[in-house]
Amino acid sequence: MAKKKELVVQKFGGTSVANAEKIKRAAQRAINEFDQGKQVIMVASARGQQTDVLIKDALEVNPNPPKREMDQLLSTGEQQTVSLIAMAIEGMGRKAISFTGAQIRMITDSVHTKARIKSIDTKRIKKALDEGNIVIVAGFQGVDENEDITTLGRGGSDTSAVALAAAMKANTCDIFTDVDGVYTTDPRVFKEAVKLDQISYDEVLEMASLGAGVMHGRSIEFGKKYNVVIHVRSSMSDKKGTLITHEVPQMEGILVSGATIEKNLAKISLIGVDNKPGNAAKVFAHLAAAKVSVNDIIQTEVSNKKANVSFTVSKNDFNDAKKAVDEIKEKVGCENLFFRDDIAEVSIIGVGMRTHYGVANMMFSTLAKEKINIDSITTSEIRISCIVDKAQGDKALVSVCKTFELDKPVNKRSYVK
Amino acid sequence: MAKKKELVVQKFGGTSVANAEKIKRAAQRAINEFDQGKQVIMVASARGQQTDVLIKDALEVNPNPPKREMDQLLSTGEQQTVSLIAMAIEGMGRKAISFTGAQIRMITDSVHTKARIKSIDTKRIKKALDEGNIVIVAGFQGVDENEDITTLGRGGSDTSAVALAAAMKANTCDIFTDVDGVYTTDPRVFKEAVKLDQISYDEVLEMASLGAGVMHGRSIEFGKKYNVVIHVRSSMSDKKGTLITHEVPQMEGILVSGATIEKNLAKISLIGVDNKPGNAAKVFAHLAAAKVSVNDIIQTEVSNKKANVSFTVSKNDFNDAKKAVDEIKEKVGCENLFFRDDIAEVSIIGVGMRTHYGVANMMFSTLAKEKINIDSITTSEIRISCIVDKAQGDKALVSVCKTFELDKPVNKRSYVK
Repeated sequence: MAKKKELVVQKFGGTSVANAEKIKRAAQRAINEFDQGKQVIMVASARGQQTDVLIKDALEVNPNPPKREMDQLLSTGEQQTVSLIAMAIEGMGRKAISFTGAQIRMITDSVHTKARIKSIDTKRIKKALDEGNIVIVAGFQGVDENEDITTLGRGGSDTSAVALAAAMKANTCDIFTDVDGVYTTDPRVFKEAVKLDQISYDEVLEMASLGAGVMHGRSIEFGKKYNVVIHVRSSMSDKKGTLITHEVPQMEGILVSGATIEKNLAKISLIGVDNKPGNAAKVFAHLAAAKVSVNDIIQTEVSNKKANVSFTVSKNDFNDAKKAVDEIKEKVGCENLFFRDDIAEVSIIGVGMRTHYGVANMMFSTLAKEKINIDSITTSEIRISCIVDKAQGDKALVSVCKTFELDKPVNKRSYVK
Repeated sequence: MAKKKELVVQKFGGTSVANAEKIKRAAQRAINEFDQGKQVIMVASARGQQTDVLIKDALEVNPNPPKREMDQLLSTGEQQTVSLIAMAIEGMGRKAISFTGAQIRMITDSVHTKARIKSIDTKRIKKALDEGNIVIVAGFQGVDENEDITTLGRGGSDTSAVALAAAMKANTCDIFTDVDGVYTTDPRVFKEAVKLDQISYDEVLEMASLGAGVMHGRSIEFGKKYNVVIHVRSSMSDKKGTLITHEVPQMEGILVSGATIEKNLAKISLIGVDNKPGNAAKVFAHLAAAKVSVNDIIQTEVSNKKANVSFTVSKNDFNDAKKAVDEIKEKVGCENLFFRDDIAEVSIIGVGMRTHYGVANMMFSTLAKEKINIDSITTSEIRISCIVDKAQGDKALVSVCKTFELDKPVNKRSYVK
């Protein structure tokens, strides 16, 4: 039997396939790998603003379109891209074949607009690869067991790519995007931010949930679960980007891998809630029923009878959240409500925190030195977040970045052994 | 068991669904039938110029795109329309569900860009109808047994609609279009042309093959084979259009149902071909190999050794045809080639010709009276065609229309008993 060929999955986002020229460039990238004797699967999103155009078309005929039909509509965007890429590759003299989610049996549940992948049948892809094709798969979409087309929600094409890489046991999953990797922080705020060579799934998950525009959490969870090495890189250059992998021992020496700032936040505080079992659950069950997605929660006893409960929400959910707590406040004995939407959340993330003490203190004293007041603090095993006045948010991020030397490559930092 | 509900199929062409307003109008049309207690299946084409836009996109990445990928690309146009129509209907408070060709198992052969329907599985449509949905099916498309998407070629959505009407045993198949029915002739040339109330499949087939922009021949063949009453009508009004049906006895009294003119023609004559068996076959086999589609063929012996062979082709094929006959001429002993592209073909069509004599003579003497020279004549059982100078084409059509009273409804014509 012939030696198994190396297999790469390459994912191209909408900006990387926005026009004919970019489609040809993506095609050339696949051909470069193919001509080195590798098998190549490409996963592509809808071109440029196509999805937005389709959403606008839908809203014109129905301001509240049924989700099944929305998926039927939006899935055409990716289908167009993949057939065009296949044409481009054929035009360059290699064999290519495009597939929809249905054609490769990307079976999902039936939760339209945010379906989850249940299984992928790899038979047809394997056959096409073995026949010498570059295979191009429509990202973002699948079918349920009823043959209804589903879509995977925000960041869905990343999830398609990582899931395919897992199912096909690919050697690597390249995510081509308009940035050249994962940065220590947002370069728009801290211009000395540097690209990371490697980062762990857990760290990227935290960064994604804190609003850093890296990759969507679901795809990272998939990669973590199925050991897919994800390579985030630029579609405009051949430079190495950032590898997202399992934690490796040397990561422990790096106190902080990255820092984030989230400004699209609001905070709601219920003051003087009756301190008895089930009251917090009542509040959050009511918020969930109102479809409000709650971020961090802070609860503190203020006496043996009363507690304060605070939480943050995305600004988009602020009005719904205010309405919901207003409805529930009397049932939990809440004495007062307190709202803020002039806040920013500054976070540091690093698996090194697990084994190093003093990281929190370094962050708090940095902010103190800059005279930045901390409204509240939440932590996880690998992150520390401080809510500060929005007006001081950028300054807070910059000062923290300097303390943890996020302007230097990992191996140049003074505290890394 | 409940009485079987009446079932109508409504087909909407691209111009009838070109924008949100028109999509809502089409939706309203289906609702009108539904609210009368009927079951409704809609079949829709791609919106307005969408298909042209996609073809342009394809040619930008590959001037000679592979046909499988072309079908994968173009089928998205209809998929978008049907999901938008379903959204519009839901927005108007009725239940609706859209299906792609694959979802209703519209199984075709694998001849991409001009596939033929092999079977339709009506189970899913029946279930959806019985659940109270208006069902909207993407026209023009199917899948082959490999789950590859196919398209049915020019006029394919008409074929989808008629095939669905046949498979579902619909009471009628409404074809909504931008004209209000089938006319006796082209009103742009003969402005007194009138709409026909009824016409036979065979007559429409002849008219379609002679370039009249009625419906595509394939859909008519389907209707004829499976007894589907086709109603060609305007999407802008509720007026009755033209019924296309099997021949009924009273049609025999109508000498001529319609007249056509085809100007996109060229004629090629091979003069002095050796008059021996197999020579004509050689010529046309060579043309077929060059993918030239030949229309009428006229062959006449000029001596017992020589014959002249003439044929017409679409102007689009003229250059390919000239090249092909030039390659073959010596092998068949041809003495000379003669080309004309300044011609027009004027035809009259009517099932009444089968049983009435003198129709041809009426046509020829009309042209003679107008001093129009006839280059050549071809006939079928229900049509007579004359090739004339292109400059005299319109005049020829008008004079023939007057002779056969194509400006009058059928029952007002002097020769109809």
